[in-house]
Amino acid sequence: MNMLRFNNDYNHGAHPAILQALQETNDTAFGGYGMDEVCEAAKEAIQQYLQSPCSEIHFLVGGTQANYTVIASILRPYQSVLAAETGHIAVHETGAVEHTGHKVETLPQKDGKITAAQIEEAAVAYETSLIPEHITQPGMVYISNPTEFGTIYSKAELEEISRVCRAHGLPLFVDGARLGYALGAADNDLTLADLARLTDVFYIGGTKCGALFGEAVVINNPELQKCFRNNIKQNGGMLAKGWLLGLQYLTLFRDGLYFEITKKADVLAMQIKEAFAAKGIPSYIESCTNQQFVILENSQMETLAKNHIFEYDRKIDENHTSVRFCTSWASKQEEIDALTADISRL
Amino acid sequence: MNMLRFNNDYNHGAHPAILQALQETNDTAFGGYGMDEVCEAAKEAIQQYLQSPCSEIHFLVGGTQANYTVIASILRPYQSVLAAETGHIAVHETGAVEHTGHKVETLPQKDGKITAAQIEEAAVAYETSLIPEHITQPGMVYISNPTEFGTIYSKAELEEISRVCRAHGLPLFVDGARLGYALGAADNDLTLADLARLTDVFYIGGTKCGALFGEAVVINNPELQKCFRNNIKQNGGMLAKGWLLGLQYLTLFRDGLYFEITKKADVLAMQIKEAFAAKGIPSYIESCTNQQFVILENSQMETLAKNHIFEYDRKIDENHTSVRFCTSWASKQEEIDALTADISRL
Amino acid sequence: MNMLRFNNDYNHGAHPAILQALQETNDTAFGGYGMDEVCEAAKEAIQQYLQSPCSEIHFLVGGTQANYTVIASILRPYQSVLAAETGHIAVHETGAVEHTGHKVETLPQKDGKITAAQIEEAAVAYETSLIPEHITQPGMVYISNPTEFGTIYSKAELEEISRVCRAHGLPLFVDGARLGYALGAADNDLTLADLARLTDVFYIGGTKCGALFGEAVVINNPELQKCFRNNIKQNGGMLAKGWLLGLQYLTLFRDGLYFEITKKADVLAMQIKEAFAAKGIPSYIESCTNQQFVILENSQMETLAKNHIFEYDRKIDENHTSVRFCTSWASKQEEIDALTADISRL
Amino acid sequence: MNMLRFNNDYNHGAHPAILQALQETNDTAFGGYGMDEVCEAAKEAIQQYLQSPCSEIHFLVGGTQANYTVIASILRPYQSVLAAETGHIAVHETGAVEHTGHKVETLPQKDGKITAAQIEEAAVAYETSLIPEHITQPGMVYISNPTEFGTIYSKAELEEISRVCRAHGLPLFVDGARLGYALGAADNDLTLADLARLTDVFYIGGTKCGALFGEAVVINNPELQKCFRNNIKQNGGMLAKGWLLGLQYLTLFRDGLYFEITKKADVLAMQIKEAFAAKGIPSYIESCTNQQFVILENSQMETLAKNHIFEYDRKIDENHTSVRFCTSWASKQEEIDALTADISRL
Repeated sequence: MNMLRFNNDYNHGAHPAILQALQETNDTAFGGYGMDEVCEAAKEAIQQYLQSPCSEIHFLVGGTQANYTVIASILRPYQSVLAAETGHIAVHETGAVEHTGHKVETLPQKDGKITAAQIEEAAVAYETSLIPEHITQPGMVYISNPTEFGTIYSKAELEEISRVCRAHGLPLFVDGARLGYALGAADNDLTLADLARLTDVFYIGGTKCGALFGEAVVINNPELQKCFRNNIKQNGGMLAKGWLLGLQYLTLFRDGLYFEITKKADVLAMQIKEAFAAKGIPSYIESCTNQQFVILENSQMETLAKNHIFEYDRKIDENHTSVRFCTSWASKQEEIDALTADISRL
Repeated sequence: MNMLRFNNDYNHGAHPAILQALQETNDTAFGGYGMDEVCEAAKEAIQQYLQSPCSEIHFLVGGTQANYTVIASILRPYQSVLAAETGHIAVHETGAVEHTGHKVETLPQKDGKITAAQIEEAAVAYETSLIPEHITQPGMVYISNPTEFGTIYSKAELEEISRVCRAHGLPLFVDGARLGYALGAADNDLTLADLARLTDVFYIGGTKCGALFGEAVVINNPELQKCFRNNIKQNGGMLAKGWLLGLQYLTLFRDGLYFEITKKADVLAMQIKEAFAAKGIPSYIESCTNQQFVILENSQMETLAKNHIFEYDRKIDENHTSVRFCTSWASKQEEIDALTADISRL
Repeated sequence: MNMLRFNNDYNHGAHPAILQALQETNDTAFGGYGMDEVCEAAKEAIQQYLQSPCSEIHFLVGGTQANYTVIASILRPYQSVLAAETGHIAVHETGAVEHTGHKVETLPQKDGKITAAQIEEAAVAYETSLIPEHITQPGMVYISNPTEFGTIYSKAELEEISRVCRAHGLPLFVDGARLGYALGAADNDLTLADLARLTDVFYIGGTKCGALFGEAVVINNPELQKCFRNNIKQNGGMLAKGWLLGLQYLTLFRDGLYFEITKKADVLAMQIKEAFAAKGIPSYIESCTNQQFVILENSQMETLAKNHIFEYDRKIDENHTSVRFCTSWASKQEEIDALTADISRL
Repeated sequence: MNMLRFNNDYNHGAHPAILQALQETNDTAFGGYGMDEVCEAAKEAIQQYLQSPCSEIHFLVGGTQANYTVIASILRPYQSVLAAETGHIAVHETGAVEHTGHKVETLPQKDGKITAAQIEEAAVAYETSLIPEHITQPGMVYISNPTEFGTIYSKAELEEISRVCRAHGLPLFVDGARLGYALGAADNDLTLADLARLTDVFYIGGTKCGALFGEAVVINNPELQKCFRNNIKQNGGMLAKGWLLGLQYLTLFRDGLYFEITKKADVLAMQIKEAFAAKGIPSYIESCTNQQFVILENSQMETLAKNHIFEYDRKIDENHTSVRFCTSWASKQEEIDALTADISRL
């Protein structure tokens, strides 16, 4: 029995429709570096959901690359990016943003999220500083949706954040490495059109949402679109065979497959959540998406580890550990059933 | 008729065996970030050709990324990389190396190549400078094989370059984005084992040699191996689904497919070369690999452009233009036949 | 009445002996970029206190420059520097360290200081991480002595920090922008020789300790000495008329003037401290050096501001504010007397 | 006899008036970081020559620092700076510009100068490139006046360069480390007002023109002025005792001393030039400013080296060497007389 199942959402290849598309086009010649008709078609497929004709779409290979390329393309040398202290760029990207020369100024988080009020406070702190030249100037805001804890921003929250960002001239960038799982959550009230309207840049994650790899960066603010392809190339993110990215996004967005498969993963995640809840096992953070963080007794952890693979999150105390169970577009109902049965037997 | 044929060597997907391998493993779960058994197997498959047990192999996505990641991992802040003035890092990577903080100090080239004597001269110039603090210190040497003009280094040349580099403490890095086509050339006398022995770092190009994407970076100098994975991650080159890279290299190297398909492309390129020669059309530079640069009269260029796509290289004079014809692992004999027939009718 | 007095320790020119030395040498020609006999003599003058013949000394212009030049010269691209969350590099240098590509990983502070235990914990956290490639690797430790709050490290504390750093391969760097005031404190038990023995790099601040400008960087670890002049030049810190720096340090260290004038400033600071204590006005942090942070009622603050200039530190509550009073090598007894008299009348 | 005389223009302290000003203000307290009344007065003194009320003036410590700080403040990440292949930033600043992430794209020079036509050609080459994302985008132009060979740009040349730069959206930056010697040359027809009108940024060198140190950066283009102080601080160029820079510039510009002393140096340089010409000794490049490059027979070089110090420039052939003789604001007529007498005896 192959045990790698719930550890993350990037442990399988791609949705079969993507492999099929690769197969079907393998004998066709395409132009290089994303200048091809497949990428154009993929952008059109995405645009039907954006309702934002001025937005530009670029396909990059991975999330860290997308994050630092976007951030470095926006900031002036003396500017920093505001982020939650748990934001992916602040903790799990090997200092990639700092490597481009910029400080990540972190804000305290709650459930992985930051608020419009916090952003405003940080902006005002700089604007009213007596020594502005000696501190970094906030130059943009980074949030992830869903967050690193699986929580999501509501439309009201994003609207308020967007309003504050615009009032203070701070471009808003949403890391959507798992965006499909946010959009598919039962609690979600945001659409891609909302994201296009409320953010300056965001990306639609492919790697964790059905593709072999790929992140579709959507730049809504025309001022930030200038020469973005140059930034991609300089940062090593321009795939020679760019149509491979276009093909995957075309497959995922032509008929809404992206939304369907991520929503299903959220539904399966709720089954896991409920199974733990039924046993009185608490969540570390309440998540409505495909990542579930629960606090297990160490003996429970060992029992579950016999048949299932999941990820260590953090030690809670001598006897308890927070662990992460992920579903994904590749999860199967029978896998969930096996897990929830084992949970119920704990 | 699809005309994109001879413009480059990255206009098709992948060798069918690779797509098949993707298909066969699509239901299997793997560990993330290249820590999986497929990558291990792929490294072993490559190692049989390296005969260099201390070498480390890492799989990156693309060439520009591989180039600047390797270079930035080696140099100290005040050091530069020596390269031919036509080296890819010097002309076609959007200043990616400079973006990491390092100057590319260029040397005059002949047929895209530099010599051991030139490297020695540059090293000595620094070592004997009266103002060493005011100039950049050569910290490594970059060459490409085949070069950007399709020419190749002989074993004798590489041995001499290697000797000079070691005498002056300069790590030698070979960009092998098209390495297969060098190894497959009739004139070639180098092996992967020679490269492992004579260089500090080199890479075995996949993107242009049969894979969907991927470059296998081989670090032979143990001092340069330290924490290279950290560098990959920081530079956005660590693919979440790392086994996709391993799988492609395993397919290409398990049974020598890599050598076979690139050699075939070289053979086909020689047919194009001979067709031009038979018409008295001169080469811009004599190449024995899959890239052929010929000087066409503009009217000839227009005639060939009716049925074939090839790449503009440079204007020679009012009436002549240097253009590039590429074959690749995906080229078919009938395509070459069609082209050579058209050439013969010029 | 000129009111700029207690706001900082860089509000006056230089000790008169320095101006006199400038005058006396103004007609003499010197070699450029610090390659001159005056710099050599200054290094010898400092060396008598270091007792560390293998240490190298370099003169830089300012503190921020010294900090990022040293840090960038030590770290590999994927490494970070550990520092107190209140460390100067973390808060008041416009992200200069991040600008060189490196993250400042901050540790909680107490009285501006960090402990050997905290450093060890951070080192072990990386060494035992399951995902070391995804986080920054601690590559060195930065502390300031005195700290940004005027507190100092004891010999026992520095020995313990040094021991931990060496055990984990972390170079230890001490920012000594105000080092004179630490060495001159009544509570101090460290010497320059201790610093040379226990640290990898430290600097002896001139700008705030009697010079017009200048920081003497002492590199004790031979491995970190390589090509440091190249780093200085590249980072814009190599003064063309380098002897101006040598001349100032020669004047300050030939006969121990440096120690004398900073010690006097500490004595005067203690008079201020005692004056506040006598009125029951609490310190924000207990400092034994030339910076005194006290918590004033806002009405007291306004009263003192009539005759004295001091620096806003932070708001404590609606009615209280922490402010900083600095003495310096330029402070005069009569100025302190005027201040303490006003304090006593609060 | 002290022999260091003609090797460079930064071998002496400062004009006596500057030392006197330092002396007179040494007991006065000033605000930090250039926010003081002396800097304001110095800016006003310079402004009388600029006739450009919207220009901003900032005082930095040195030339390399000024160069890379200005350049990095202007360019976007994927942009390069165009410069003569002999430009100081291209050859003698340890790759400081590349260290900020930007390529220096060099153009062939004549007498150290580049032309409007060359700039236009480079701009058009990018604008018409088929692969703009793969090459660096020219983002500004750097020239030095006088050049590294002592030659100067005429008003007509600068007007034409300025016109081309504006037509192609390329900010024009003039390195004026020796600007005084250009303005003082008999052949010169440029004024500071011309520079303010025709350039986006230029600087008025102090280090080599009478000051202890200092460069006054003048930013004429309002779009480039934003947060320049933040850039200075981040790049280690913000002197804590900023008034030391203001004081020097005030002294040099209050009554035109700057122009007077540099003009005198040019006059003395012409005496050297004529002495060589009278002996039939050729110039390497014809210069009308304080740097004179002449081609000596090696035996002549040895003879002159007995009494005079000058700088090696380059080997011409086995028997001839190009060497540089510099005058400066500190040169005395009797020193020139001694040299010209020795020349006449060759």
